[in-house]
Amino acid sequence: MVNNDAIIALSTPSGAGAIAVIRISGVIAIELCDENFKSVSGKKLINQATHTIHLGHIIKDGKELDEVLVSVFKNPNSYTGENVIEISCHGSPYIQQEIIQLFLRKGCRIANPGEFTLRAFLNGKLDLSQAEAVADLISSDNEASHQIAMQQMRGGFSNEIKALRDELMNFASLIELELDFAEEDVEFANRDQFKELILRIVKVLKHLIDSFAVGNVIKNGIPVAIIGEPNVGKSTLLNVLLNEEKAIVSDIAGTTRDAIEDELNIGGIGFRFIDTAGIRETKDVIESIGIKKTFEKITKSQVVIYLFDASQVTEENSDSFNVEIKSIQNQFPDKPLVVVANKIDNSNSDLIRSEFKYENLLLISAKENIGVEELKNKLLEFVNTGALRNNQTIVTNSRHYDALLKALEEIQKVQQGMDANLSGDLLAIDIRQALYHFGEITGEITSDDLLGNIFANFCIGK
Amino acid sequence: MVNNDAIIALSTPSGAGAIAVIRISGVIAIELCDENFKSVSGKKLINQATHTIHLGHIIKDGKELDEVLVSVFKNPNSYTGENVIEISCHGSPYIQQEIIQLFLRKGCRIANPGEFTLRAFLNGKLDLSQAEAVADLISSDNEASHQIAMQQMRGGFSNEIKALRDELMNFASLIELELDFAEEDVEFANRDQFKELILRIVKVLKHLIDSFAVGNVIKNGIPVAIIGEPNVGKSTLLNVLLNEEKAIVSDIAGTTRDAIEDELNIGGIGFRFIDTAGIRETKDVIESIGIKKTFEKITKSQVVIYLFDASQVTEENSDSFNVEIKSIQNQFPDKPLVVVANKIDNSNSDLIRSEFKYENLLLISAKENIGVEELKNKLLEFVNTGALRNNQTIVTNSRHYDALLKALEEIQKVQQGMDANLSGDLLAIDIRQALYHFGEITGEITSDDLLGNIFANFCIGK
Repeated sequence: MVNNDAIIALSTPSGAGAIAVIRISGVIAIELCDENFKSVSGKKLINQATHTIHLGHIIKDGKELDEVLVSVFKNPNSYTGENVIEISCHGSPYIQQEIIQLFLRKGCRIANPGEFTLRAFLNGKLDLSQAEAVADLISSDNEASHQIAMQQMRGGFSNEIKALRDELMNFASLIELELDFAEEDVEFANRDQFKELILRIVKVLKHLIDSFAVGNVIKNGIPVAIIGEPNVGKSTLLNVLLNEEKAIVSDIAGTTRDAIEDELNIGGIGFRFIDTAGIRETKDVIESIGIKKTFEKITKSQVVIYLFDASQVTEENSDSFNVEIKSIQNQFPDKPLVVVANKIDNSNSDLIRSEFKYENLLLISAKENIGVEELKNKLLEFVNTGALRNNQTIVTNSRHYDALLKALEEIQKVQQGMDANLSGDLLAIDIRQALYHFGEITGEITSDDLLGNIFANFCIGK
Repeated sequence: MVNNDAIIALSTPSGAGAIAVIRISGVIAIELCDENFKSVSGKKLINQATHTIHLGHIIKDGKELDEVLVSVFKNPNSYTGENVIEISCHGSPYIQQEIIQLFLRKGCRIANPGEFTLRAFLNGKLDLSQAEAVADLISSDNEASHQIAMQQMRGGFSNEIKALRDELMNFASLIELELDFAEEDVEFANRDQFKELILRIVKVLKHLIDSFAVGNVIKNGIPVAIIGEPNVGKSTLLNVLLNEEKAIVSDIAGTTRDAIEDELNIGGIGFRFIDTAGIRETKDVIESIGIKKTFEKITKSQVVIYLFDASQVTEENSDSFNVEIKSIQNQFPDKPLVVVANKIDNSNSDLIRSEFKYENLLLISAKENIGVEELKNKLLEFVNTGALRNNQTIVTNSRHYDALLKALEEIQKVQQGMDANLSGDLLAIDIRQALYHFGEITGEITSDDLLGNIFANFCIGK
């Protein structure tokens, strides 16, 4: 499965910068570099210790192409487990291109996306879920998703699965051993201990499966619908939230987040705000397309913010506001609803409090930045971050989720089989199936297709 | 002048990638990193040899922020000449930002553009013209400009200036010594040798000053005006030229050149094509704004391509084409003009050859890609690449150009002074002035303003 050819890729983002790093991995990586590198010390890289850095020039057609630093990593002490060279060159796209082309001509080939990490996996440097965490880590853009990826990369998740798998494998072996002595009716596998193990596995699996809902929103951001009539201040509210976020980010030169328009980070959790313009029409034509669309969007959200203009509320008309709020509550009884009275700087707070009796009522002024902090805290309350705070394992990967569901199904079959006193050979089949799904997560069981799918999502150079 | 605080910056391009490199430089850089880094080996970075790489974790608030490789460079063996740490982390913008913020809190400050290179200059690792070459190297986008920058970084240019400066300084000292013995009428400085030196300096200076014209177009691309009536095939020609270029570039994934629309690279030289739509109107109203604009564009160009539709030419109307070509030739007698008969696949070649007698006549079909290669070669012919091919020193920096002009002026004053048998004290003043301008180039003479201007053009992290 392992190719012994040398692969090369630009590992830093493309474009001009102070420096760029080009990575080469393969049995012949160091020799290959030596052929095109002249160190200042005059020494060959192949004679250097691993994890050392050497100043010199990349030579092309007898000319100095660039002054570079070359880092040497020797098998097995490298990211891929192979010999690895990292060339730190001046960050001109022209130079990057020339160096890569030089090595392509000398026998390297361009690495596929994630191919360095694939090699690390194939060489046993990482298990599969750890390899997947590398891509998650690179794409993480907030504290929560970063923390989950780090935990997964450290092996928290797969270690748990592996330990259970080993125990289960042990029992499977004992049960299969019994089959060899079937006529003697012996029990090598202690059935009580086995039942206890199965219970434990079911508990862990259910816990992990449950964590997926949390993990998924953390990874992708928590969808929040802000609904309300036009001009109640939805955009102002969003801007207040977004501008603060942008101000924080722009503290560091070079981290541009222009592309993010309605996503923001509160307390390390990403929130995605769903635009629900057009609730106005829903009042007249209750079955109109307008309300349908808004309701679709509410369905997709995890939290709903209902915003209204508190300055428009009088004792007389407050009922009409309440009718609308209650209709949303009734339609989505399970959806957390935050009722937000905006423009409170221009309203009678006492009136609002007496007319709107909701558990999650907030009085704010988006324009004057009053109560916005309370709203943020309220949003965070709805996120079950208990697991996150306690550093528990959270499943974020839908491939893992599927495998866990299948493993649970098989384990439950084993459980039923035990209760029904099924014979060992029948139990063994279901246990093997469960083991298979465990193995899929950590990569003991793989296929080219599976690996292809996983690593295709990586960036080039990792 | 040297600040001893630690500076930090992202040295790789911003955005997500496989890895990112964060650089810290300063007396306390290594200790500072040790405070926030836990190596896998358990050893402290401060006890490690220079030019070694260490795997471990950046720790923030007791948590592992990222698994990183830390490169240690110890004073004076580093880019800046100070202690330098390079942190190679996962390329997520979130992680980059977190690590930089962590070190900012621990007492680093964000580096100004080019501040690492400024420190390298202040610590004597580079002279000023070499430092400037670093920025040129990073922004070089073709073989020629890259080669010039490399040569300048190797010190080819400043070594030449320095050697002359030393010789001149020597004579200056001798002449100034004579002043101390003025009453005795001695000559420590051999006037013949001195005249010979001055002649040599004038020759070198003139040569360098002349090279600026070549250097400037190579650095910025050679402006070429393509003129001609609408529908003669200007765009098709440009596309043919540009598409080939794009195909070459896109061989390497990650090198995007979307921004370049009408620049192309022929034989390692950059050409900038200047759009000159609207020559049609010039026929009728000879003094119109149209012709004025086109003529302005021609003035700015180094080469003019006159394109016409050969399929429209008959024996009867060929004169009108020639009139126009000749009017351009007359207006710009010194401007190389290439007369290009396009759509030759659809024309009578013999007729074209007999009706249009120009030294630089080319018969092409942009659509069928006939003769395009010849056109490229013709363009290259106009570029004086003799200096480039012979690896001679080429001045590309207008600051250097100015200093060279001023130095030449002063040296010529010295020359005239010698011819007029001026006294040593008067000669000495002009020599000192010349020395001053030499020193400006290599950086023996600097000011905060000058350094500020130079390094402000650098990217952050270099």
